[in-house]
Amino acid sequence: MSSSGSIANRMRPGRTFVRGKMKEVSFINYIRSRSVFDPAVVPVGPGDDMAVVRCGGQDILVAADQVLDGVHFRLAEHGARAAGRKAMARNLSDVAAMACEPLAAVATVALPRGFSEADAKEMYAGLRELGDQFSCPLVGGDIATWDGALAISLSILATPGEAGIVLRAGSRVGDAICVTGAFGGAWHTLRHLTFAPRVAEGLILGRYGLHSMIDVSDGLAIDLGHVCEASGVGADVQAAAVPVHPDAQHRPDALAAALGDGEDYELLFTLPQDQAERLLADKPLGDVTVTRIGTIVAGAARSLVLADRRRQELVAGGWQHDT
Amino acid sequence: MSSSGSIANRMRPGRTFVRGKMKEVSFINYIRSRSVFDPAVVPVGPGDDMAVVRCGGQDILVAADQVLDGVHFRLAEHGARAAGRKAMARNLSDVAAMACEPLAAVATVALPRGFSEADAKEMYAGLRELGDQFSCPLVGGDIATWDGALAISLSILATPGEAGIVLRAGSRVGDAICVTGAFGGAWHTLRHLTFAPRVAEGLILGRYGLHSMIDVSDGLAIDLGHVCEASGVGADVQAAAVPVHPDAQHRPDALAAALGDGEDYELLFTLPQDQAERLLADKPLGDVTVTRIGTIVAGAARSLVLADRRRQELVAGGWQHDT
Repeated sequence: MSSSGSIANRMRPGRTFVRGKMKEVSFINYIRSRSVFDPAVVPVGPGDDMAVVRCGGQDILVAADQVLDGVHFRLAEHGARAAGRKAMARNLSDVAAMACEPLAAVATVALPRGFSEADAKEMYAGLRELGDQFSCPLVGGDIATWDGALAISLSILATPGEAGIVLRAGSRVGDAICVTGAFGGAWHTLRHLTFAPRVAEGLILGRYGLHSMIDVSDGLAIDLGHVCEASGVGADVQAAAVPVHPDAQHRPDALAAALGDGEDYELLFTLPQDQAERLLADKPLGDVTVTRIGTIVAGAARSLVLADRRRQELVAGGWQHDT
Repeated sequence: MSSSGSIANRMRPGRTFVRGKMKEVSFINYIRSRSVFDPAVVPVGPGDDMAVVRCGGQDILVAADQVLDGVHFRLAEHGARAAGRKAMARNLSDVAAMACEPLAAVATVALPRGFSEADAKEMYAGLRELGDQFSCPLVGGDIATWDGALAISLSILATPGEAGIVLRAGSRVGDAICVTGAFGGAWHTLRHLTFAPRVAEGLILGRYGLHSMIDVSDGLAIDLGHVCEASGVGADVQAAAVPVHPDAQHRPDALAAALGDGEDYELLFTLPQDQAERLLADKPLGDVTVTRIGTIVAGAARSLVLADRRRQELVAGGWQHDT
């Protein structure tokens, strides 16, 4: 059970919903505390980007994610196609974060009254756009009309990539912390509606002996925190190494934007230093950059290491000018 | 892609939403017309109670269904636990209709602002109640808060029962048409919130050489129509044989209620006459009755055969007094 992307989105713009967020996180912890699974059937339960269920000797991964009008998109501004696209893209990003291959998806759609047939076709085209691109057929679902706003819920199935499944848990002290792409500003420039899920990249990265991986939806600081908590480790992040996206480079709080904005849907992963060296030399991801931003350390502290070697707590708000 | 239960619900009370319904059905047909699947990966696509995807030699079934405040339940009247229960129950009913075994479920929940932690726990208890009973663990999902009403979307995975998967398509001329349980009045008595999904019954029925099966959510007439359309056959239903639920027996339009109300979540299936005889003699479902209500015939017509042998078109409205 995750609240990843949705929390991130609700925090934007202006983080007015932090109170609601805490409640959700506490509810998710409640659910986890009450869940006991047979590991022969559910090797990985709630708490990662996808769950794993085992069936006839085959591991099947499954995740569900929703996009809601007014939270994850604004129908009147962005249109139905963007909503459909984001529903599929967020789920494909979860598949990428496990280093897995998409298998199929099902969707439920709650349509507002007055939603036109043209809008419905646009929404469907949005769902299909990335589904077709990533060989993830939409095989079923349910449609209903209601008095509420547009809500699209999508569930995705995946199978392990050739290198197996990569979880959030598994980071080890000394691991390099790396990321694909660059961070910040995705909400303001609408990149959160147009991003390319890193499915192919996740599969390639899986060949580099990754110890852990997550997709960055909540934001770099929060999602690195998820990896550290799941792995029982801490992290040092070099402030100067964090790749700031052009969408945020002009902002006076560019580093804070990169660490806290979220909605980047890039991959964050940890791996042994020698594997990181090999990866950085190989450059196997084409146009998609890989950047080493820090190191996994013992303990639970996540620190931002500034250019003058001063250390600060790594928080979503980023660099604290006044300390 | 199905609109089964949701259409049924929106038609109640008073069928005020028939116009919306037609639009949904036409949209679903649009989706089907645009879907082409690799049968090696997707042996069964949209249009049945569940889709089937193949993975590593294993068939996995998947379906998604949603329950929306004001459509499938009324939060203020019925409470959060009933909403959660219905979300799981509707999906388990889809598993029953395929003669399959539940494997796991994922859910997304859109919470209205002001939804209390106590409500959230009740909703979760509702989801878990049948999940636990039917060995269908809730392994993941997503929670977000929004300005809208409560929307729960659940996706369910299943594996074939020992007798294999039973589809809607497959009815043959001469088949007996049988149903479990009795029909009518489920919306008015709230049986749609408390029904027991026929999962165990579906698995047992699978041993009787079924040619087709569906769960009755839209109503007996409409859902038998789905089976006939998928199978390319017609049907004669004996009016006197239709089991009317005690919830509707007092009503002057009891037969119409049984044929048209929907929300019964009983199983409707067809099978060779000799298998039907064996089933009716065996009575393998304990307290759950099985009734033979008619016969599959050639052509496309679905007819209601009255006691005086007059025939009428079988429609959701049931017996036409004025013809």
